[in-house]
Amino acid sequence: MKAGILGYGNLGKGVEAAINRSADIELVAVYTRRDPASLKIATPSAAVKSADDLEGGKEDIDVLIICGGSATDLPEMTPKYAKWYNVVDSFDTHANIPLHFGNVDAASKEGGKVGLISCGWDPGMFSLNRLYASAVLPGGKDYTFWGRGVSQGHSDAIRRIDGVKDARQYTIPVEEAVQKVRSGENPELTTRQKHTRECFVVAKDGADKAKIEQEIKTMPNYFADYDTTVHFITEEEMKRDHSGLPHGGSVIYSGETGTSGNKHVIEYSLKLDSNPEFTGSVLTAYARAIVRLNTEGVTGAKTVFDIAPAYLSPVPGDELRAHFL
Amino acid sequence: MKAGILGYGNLGKGVEAAINRSADIELVAVYTRRDPASLKIATPSAAVKSADDLEGGKEDIDVLIICGGSATDLPEMTPKYAKWYNVVDSFDTHANIPLHFGNVDAASKEGGKVGLISCGWDPGMFSLNRLYASAVLPGGKDYTFWGRGVSQGHSDAIRRIDGVKDARQYTIPVEEAVQKVRSGENPELTTRQKHTRECFVVAKDGADKAKIEQEIKTMPNYFADYDTTVHFITEEEMKRDHSGLPHGGSVIYSGETGTSGNKHVIEYSLKLDSNPEFTGSVLTAYARAIVRLNTEGVTGAKTVFDIAPAYLSPVPGDELRAHFL
Repeated sequence: MKAGILGYGNLGKGVEAAINRSADIELVAVYTRRDPASLKIATPSAAVKSADDLEGGKEDIDVLIICGGSATDLPEMTPKYAKWYNVVDSFDTHANIPLHFGNVDAASKEGGKVGLISCGWDPGMFSLNRLYASAVLPGGKDYTFWGRGVSQGHSDAIRRIDGVKDARQYTIPVEEAVQKVRSGENPELTTRQKHTRECFVVAKDGADKAKIEQEIKTMPNYFADYDTTVHFITEEEMKRDHSGLPHGGSVIYSGETGTSGNKHVIEYSLKLDSNPEFTGSVLTAYARAIVRLNTEGVTGAKTVFDIAPAYLSPVPGDELRAHFL
Repeated sequence: MKAGILGYGNLGKGVEAAINRSADIELVAVYTRRDPASLKIATPSAAVKSADDLEGGKEDIDVLIICGGSATDLPEMTPKYAKWYNVVDSFDTHANIPLHFGNVDAASKEGGKVGLISCGWDPGMFSLNRLYASAVLPGGKDYTFWGRGVSQGHSDAIRRIDGVKDARQYTIPVEEAVQKVRSGENPELTTRQKHTRECFVVAKDGADKAKIEQEIKTMPNYFADYDTTVHFITEEEMKRDHSGLPHGGSVIYSGETGTSGNKHVIEYSLKLDSNPEFTGSVLTAYARAIVRLNTEGVTGAKTVFDIAPAYLSPVPGDELRAHFL
């Protein structure tokens, strides 16, 4: 199976790492909108090419994994390439999923390809667990907690504040809330009761730290609705203690059965050393799945909900039944 | 969607309870090998019929959920009814899954039906999680812990001992082992290091308790390889404290990505007040799925690995994408 990656940021590198651990998938090329000569990739056997080379579907790849941002890249890129290639993306702007799905569906069907959108861990593995749990225990309630992990969007928001040189923001679930949910109590929880936010900030020389802290804590949408703590640290401390991109979280679902109301709690949790490498691994498994589906004649837009789990694995059906069932 | 249940033990009752919480599924009849007149079921609108009525495929049902034992019932019943009806079973004798799958596959294809085998939580939801995790993080390691919960097979084994009036056996994961696995250490664990067994026994008047305890603790396969504790209790205590059938457990998978070996731990856990009601709920969701698949022209034997998650839910695709993705 021959794969291409479009975009070589953190996620593109994560996909590359995942492909290089998959014996049945070969990375043919990384495509970039930058000057290909300026890009050095980790896979010696793969080419670095211009995104322009993808035009018209001329590239000899079975699937293109599109590693762009949800705000502006993916809404344009995924439908564009979906008519020429089987594609996978990690589109995560919730409100726009129906629109994006429709655009990709039309393009994929036009080209006779499969386009899988909104893949990763949330949306992705977490979505699967919300769906499985609610199908098995209808009428229950799901809770999603994120963290402890680095939110890149929130870190970026802090970096845009005047006087900030660098910043890292951790989203942290409130342990008491998690315990309440885990007990099957089905509590009503406000935003503030579910997560706290912890910020590590390197201030520029002479910056007004009190003012920075105030600006962070009152920032609408990002921080105002949360209990937020701010720590000022040195550049060296930032580099030493906060250079990874760990993340994780959990989906907890509780529901009842029977007439006496027996309770059941289903919990799925992730503890990830590297958010982009794990996300890249999920995208790679689904890339395998959609190539197979397309080989069987399937076309159009799909999400993780539409893919039977066996398609994700390189292991044949009889071995799956013998070893995993 | 019209469903029938074959067998009205704990699992059959659990399926009945699940169907009665599913607005899109109607329980038409419970089929029994006993005298139908002797059976009183919980659903007033459903009939109680003889299993003989199922012969030849004459019953007006879309799916038959077969609630028999894996040792002798299911190997015979599932292939038999698979040629007349879409069927679901909970076959869990691991070594015989390939044979059972083959038998059901032949019968289902002959009849143009779908037969889903080995459904429930293990095999079932736990199997799904072993598969998803290993597909996303190839080369990792999975661990399955069961409990704290009642093992009916082990409880039965104790009841067969001379001098025992009643017994309940709990399987309990060793917390230290769970923590080690959760930390991503990938430990090698013996049977004894993973689970302990706790037994509650009502002895007959004048029985030799020391001898009973000794017989339990040295019973091959069931107890000899475990640290087992035995408590003698009264019949009243048994009824008061041990009349439920709680169970649960967890699948923990840890794997690596990248060249620097970033670690990731995926954990799926269940805490169930009623093992048969939860298992019945899983069977019911998959019954919905295979009826739909059969309507689309699919035939043959399937496992949970072969079913795209969206088929389990009565919610339409666009709503799933809007609310669960």
